Amino acid sequence: MTDFASITPRLAEQAIELPSWAFGNSGTRFKVFGTPGTPRTPQEKIADAAQVNKFTALSPTVALHIPWDKVDDYAALRDYAQSLGVDLGTINSNTFQDDDYKFGSLTHVDPKIRQKAIDHHFECIDIMNQTGSRDLKIWLADGTNYPGQGDIRGRQDRLADSLQKIYARIGDEQRLVLEYKFFEPAFYHTDVPDWGTSYVQVLALGDKAMVCLDTGHHAPGTNIEFIVAQLLRLGKLGSFDFNSRFYADDDLIVGAADPFQLFRILYEVIRGGGYGADSGVAFMLDQCHNVEDKIPGQIRSVLNVQEMTARALLVDGEALTAAQDAGDVLGANGILMDAFYTDVRPALAEWRESRGLDGDPFAAYAASGYQAKIAADRVGGTQAGWGA
Amino acid sequence: MTDFASITPRLAEQAIELPSWAFGNSGTRFKVFGTPGTPRTPQEKIADAAQVNKFTALSPTVALHIPWDKVDDYAALRDYAQSLGVDLGTINSNTFQDDDYKFGSLTHVDPKIRQKAIDHHFECIDIMNQTGSRDLKIWLADGTNYPGQGDIRGRQDRLADSLQKIYARIGDEQRLVLEYKFFEPAFYHTDVPDWGTSYVQVLALGDKAMVCLDTGHHAPGTNIEFIVAQLLRLGKLGSFDFNSRFYADDDLIVGAADPFQLFRILYEVIRGGGYGADSGVAFMLDQCHNVEDKIPGQIRSVLNVQEMTARALLVDGEALTAAQDAGDVLGANGILMDAFYTDVRPALAEWRESRGLDGDPFAAYAASGYQAKIAADRVGGTQAGWGA
Amino acid sequence: MTDFASITPRLAEQAIELPSWAFGNSGTRFKVFGTPGTPRTPQEKIADAAQVNKFTALSPTVALHIPWDKVDDYAALRDYAQSLGVDLGTINSNTFQDDDYKFGSLTHVDPKIRQKAIDHHFECIDIMNQTGSRDLKIWLADGTNYPGQGDIRGRQDRLADSLQKIYARIGDEQRLVLEYKFFEPAFYHTDVPDWGTSYVQVLALGDKAMVCLDTGHHAPGTNIEFIVAQLLRLGKLGSFDFNSRFYADDDLIVGAADPFQLFRILYEVIRGGGYGADSGVAFMLDQCHNVEDKIPGQIRSVLNVQEMTARALLVDGEALTAAQDAGDVLGANGILMDAFYTDVRPALAEWRESRGLDGDPFAAYAASGYQAKIAADRVGGTQAGWGA
Amino acid sequence: MTDFASITPRLAEQAIELPSWAFGNSGTRFKVFGTPGTPRTPQEKIADAAQVNKFTALSPTVALHIPWDKVDDYAALRDYAQSLGVDLGTINSNTFQDDDYKFGSLTHVDPKIRQKAIDHHFECIDIMNQTGSRDLKIWLADGTNYPGQGDIRGRQDRLADSLQKIYARIGDEQRLVLEYKFFEPAFYHTDVPDWGTSYVQVLALGDKAMVCLDTGHHAPGTNIEFIVAQLLRLGKLGSFDFNSRFYADDDLIVGAADPFQLFRILYEVIRGGGYGADSGVAFMLDQCHNVEDKIPGQIRSVLNVQEMTARALLVDGEALTAAQDAGDVLGANGILMDAFYTDVRPALAEWRESRGLDGDPFAAYAASGYQAKIAADRVGGTQAGWGA
Repeated sequence: MTDFASITPRLAEQAIELPSWAFGNSGTRFKVFGTPGTPRTPQEKIADAAQVNKFTALSPTVALHIPWDKVDDYAALRDYAQSLGVDLGTINSNTFQDDDYKFGSLTHVDPKIRQKAIDHHFECIDIMNQTGSRDLKIWLADGTNYPGQGDIRGRQDRLADSLQKIYARIGDEQRLVLEYKFFEPAFYHTDVPDWGTSYVQVLALGDKAMVCLDTGHHAPGTNIEFIVAQLLRLGKLGSFDFNSRFYADDDLIVGAADPFQLFRILYEVIRGGGYGADSGVAFMLDQCHNVEDKIPGQIRSVLNVQEMTARALLVDGEALTAAQDAGDVLGANGILMDAFYTDVRPALAEWRESRGLDGDPFAAYAASGYQAKIAADRVGGTQAGWGA
Repeated sequence: MTDFASITPRLAEQAIELPSWAFGNSGTRFKVFGTPGTPRTPQEKIADAAQVNKFTALSPTVALHIPWDKVDDYAALRDYAQSLGVDLGTINSNTFQDDDYKFGSLTHVDPKIRQKAIDHHFECIDIMNQTGSRDLKIWLADGTNYPGQGDIRGRQDRLADSLQKIYARIGDEQRLVLEYKFFEPAFYHTDVPDWGTSYVQVLALGDKAMVCLDTGHHAPGTNIEFIVAQLLRLGKLGSFDFNSRFYADDDLIVGAADPFQLFRILYEVIRGGGYGADSGVAFMLDQCHNVEDKIPGQIRSVLNVQEMTARALLVDGEALTAAQDAGDVLGANGILMDAFYTDVRPALAEWRESRGLDGDPFAAYAASGYQAKIAADRVGGTQAGWGA
Repeated sequence: MTDFASITPRLAEQAIELPSWAFGNSGTRFKVFGTPGTPRTPQEKIADAAQVNKFTALSPTVALHIPWDKVDDYAALRDYAQSLGVDLGTINSNTFQDDDYKFGSLTHVDPKIRQKAIDHHFECIDIMNQTGSRDLKIWLADGTNYPGQGDIRGRQDRLADSLQKIYARIGDEQRLVLEYKFFEPAFYHTDVPDWGTSYVQVLALGDKAMVCLDTGHHAPGTNIEFIVAQLLRLGKLGSFDFNSRFYADDDLIVGAADPFQLFRILYEVIRGGGYGADSGVAFMLDQCHNVEDKIPGQIRSVLNVQEMTARALLVDGEALTAAQDAGDVLGANGILMDAFYTDVRPALAEWRESRGLDGDPFAAYAASGYQAKIAADRVGGTQAGWGA
Repeated sequence: MTDFASITPRLAEQAIELPSWAFGNSGTRFKVFGTPGTPRTPQEKIADAAQVNKFTALSPTVALHIPWDKVDDYAALRDYAQSLGVDLGTINSNTFQDDDYKFGSLTHVDPKIRQKAIDHHFECIDIMNQTGSRDLKIWLADGTNYPGQGDIRGRQDRLADSLQKIYARIGDEQRLVLEYKFFEPAFYHTDVPDWGTSYVQVLALGDKAMVCLDTGHHAPGTNIEFIVAQLLRLGKLGSFDFNSRFYADDDLIVGAADPFQLFRILYEVIRGGGYGADSGVAFMLDQCHNVEDKIPGQIRSVLNVQEMTARALLVDGEALTAAQDAGDVLGANGILMDAFYTDVRPALAEWRESRGLDGDPFAAYAASGYQAKIAADRVGGTQAGWGA
């Protein structure tokens, strides 16, 4: 197995963007539970995100969701973030919470509603220009609930047309990233249900359009690392939304449901050249902390990704290739498992300390008193959630 | 195939309970769309439900959900319902929307919270005594999101204990019906995830405890009609919550996603003695009309059940048994399919007319002007939804 | 709804290719049951296939599987087929039953084994030149059983290279059709697991390379008609392998498990221009009659496709579009369901009779005495199966 | 976390039965690959199984499959096994490979075929009396492929009747263990598809009848550890068939597909009192080494179970309960994960050496020369597989 010391330069490259909305309340259609200390404003969300980076040095940027994170002055918001040691990242559009979008947004039969949805993306690009964001991420909730409700083919054509209009506004240093999702909120068909659909749509747009892979948006049993390898091969893997799932789009902490799957995904990321700043692949969390504390939940998440990345970097690639080429099934599998079963936590703690961090970020945050402080300070106002 | 005329007496026995909440707004965690005319009160929900029965003669009762349908005077509510030609049915408890239930209700580690949940069921039984309802239906949202979060075994034991206390209050003519659900809102484990668990829990309670089968609450690929046959064989099928699904608990219109599955389920119901007033099996809808009109959605639903019941009744049982016994695979399958592919709609329309109904209840409702009237009348107030 | 008379010209265009192997024995890894009358030779398989066409006029061609259907003289085999009223169709390659292919064929790390697999396809193309077949269908069993066993990315690259070599031999009037499959016989990863992978591979090859969609080769819950619509939109739907499934690759009679799904698929085929001789989309069965009689099983299958095609043709497209554009969810769904619930069997029987066929091909075949004749005649020899 | 030294007494209790058939060839319906050295006789299978125990001290018994392992003299076979340091274990019946069972065995409509299947189990019990086996394991392949093919209810009743007759012959110290399976070889319905069905059937039999849980026989997404906890709570968990799966009944090496799931299962086994000789729960492998070497595959398998058992034993139960009771979601989950992420391999190697074993059984076997010896010796004859 590769030596831990030799992988620390690569580990130092790691950056995992945090979603502002992970710090607000979330839940299911049945109930959203509130918690003391939940942010009320974009600023408070960013302050919480900065705590994650303070203790882990893993999350230098925060993604915004428009309109949930709308402010009057994005330059000021950026300054504020930078003053806390983080920067603003991906801008996420939202075309699923306006009554006009009941039957679609970029795919709607009515050109006026399509234009409204396109205009919303223009607004997002304007914000990107102010925040200095590189990526516009589009997750499309469009779809239908009943066979016959919509014209699947027509909707796909209209989607292509709408995306083309948005893409035309994307700046030279910017990218459009299109996310796919198997189902929900639509239950019969989703207009971008799989990587194939996202791929053909972004391929038609051009080089600045890429696929976003959310680890929770696949059919049961899907081999996600295969998709990672394929998209890297095609040069079209733009970003990850990390989370985990047992059933549907559970949005649990990344690595919580199937840590071995996360390991395999990260192994293919590295093997395919998708790791590191130059790769062009953005790593991001997209999770819902419905019943657990949010800041510690995010800390656990970035640590999970870091620990699994370390394990994946430890794989002895040369030995693996030799075993694969020899048809040594158990040997090859054993080389992979050897890295997975290695406990990287002590070495990571030591390395963190060598960089001036606490060896145990989770405990250090808990001891910091921040949680008690925000619970005491953030009284009144409306706690942030998926509506704000 | 059996003659249509010979099955009309059986069809006349059909009764499908409507859920009051189907007339309120519903949606996903992403968005709940409102609609003009949505009820603001339990009375308005009942009025809408009565429309379904008026045009179909299929839905003589309305299920209530407590606390969503709490009123001061249940006797008056019952009188009101009866004045509209319907009666009150099953009482559904709710232990998932109070902050105290974040980590469980009947299974909670804290005896005070368990008692609160038990007391809520006592309140439901009190209401049943006023409404004359037979069934107390318990759908338990309890579960955990992360491995280790709870003690699966301890929770099961506490559930048994809590149910025992509730069951002790169930009257001689009343029943406790325990619903199971594969997942959601909990994403790692659900305390009553499958028919087996519901069965062992109600078996421990006694004769007045039964299983509720919601057609949308199973793992992908589950053969639901097998469970129907098994529960009827064991004498423990208490009720159905009808709806349909492509993916998770989609709560679509019953029969919309897989009409052939609905046919197979109804065939096993009939074959196993679960059809008709004396069977003790209650038929109920449990659906979410997220994007379609609610009253027409309910009309379509009861018609779907009626049409499939007619098809299932048409199966030539004698010929089927002969083919089965002869090992004639294609012959036996063909006999079943022959009934399924028969278009029963014209005969049903004729039969409806013979009973003083409109042959096309869906069109008749649309022509009635009721929808326009409620849209005009129900202005102001708060539209009913899953929170009220 | 559209008038039945108006759709008969379209129905007359229907042609569904039969797989020669459907007439041989098949089963599971647990057991293959034999049956009296099972063919021993390619000629006998073709004779059986010709029976299906004789009674239905729906299956003018028979697909061959190499090496199962190897003969010395393909011209003679073609003459024989034509003498029975059918022609030879698609040639299917086989790179999964030779010991050399244990760890892959077109993707193998060893260039000699890859070349062997490529050579096999050259042989298939030679046969196509003799049989006059248009399509070379490649279903690739390649994949791995354990994480780490193979290099997913390297295998994909080698696949592309191998396909390129095969494609270079494809004649001007020929096509290469690449099938995808979610899993089995490989259980960790499959080298062509989804439509996206098949699409990117054939896109890289050129205009004469197309995707084959087998209806049983998807993850649970996959919306197959969406894929149909997408591939038709992209101009890359080459052919269908029809069958049905409840769980995995069950290979049951098409339409047996979910007739409504078959209807939706055929509706999208028609709506997207994939129906009819000029469409370039080939319809084929790919089934296993493990426990039912094979010839009647094939007859039932082509009738199922015909009946569902008729229903799909009956959809009132104009009314549907109007309802879709109006956001009338229940109306649009109702228009689709109206066609689905229509019993087209009497009209089809009548139409068949008008064309000189028996109205009930299933019964007519049973009455023909063919089954008894082959059971009596085909004594001795080795019954055909997946090994021959 | 619990100290490793404190768990070694518990680890010493571990015993994992090996299936004789794991040493024979297996594959899929597409192909069974042979390997040099594959056993030709029950004796050679036992000799191979003894190798696994020799290097791991984890597998003191070997399960037999009748008729695959039929011999004239079972006492001699037992003596032979004991001479190699192992004993004979569970007897597995087989009612899926005889032509008579095409449409069922214990559930068949024909009483003569049912009796034949019952008689086969009587024969198995006779063998148990000679081998000294405690458990008769029944996995029933019965089911149907098409709706209508069989009478689901009637089959269940006949199954109950047949099992009653078999159970009546079970000796005082013997047990009947009934396995369930979601699907395959039947594709529409399986007569014992889920734990609930197995449970109600064995409950009706009596105290000596138990449920067998095969980890690969569940619907996608099923929470298996919940079933473990439930069956232990009900006192009806008789045995495990360990293996792993990504898709269907893949029969891969236990722990290979989802090691964290194996950990959770073993944690619930221990927490519920199902671990250790006195627990009455039998641990067994049931796997197919289709592409990997068989003896090393079995060694890897028992080591995987041992390593995960060690991790599960390391969970700090007291701390976990405290965190659970405090509603500390992340803390409780963290305690579980801490044990899972611990690398127990060095401590296990050391402990093995203290018991006179090689620290690395996998490498020690490879170095032993046994594989080369059997490859050279076992020439001629028919390699064992699922047919023999």
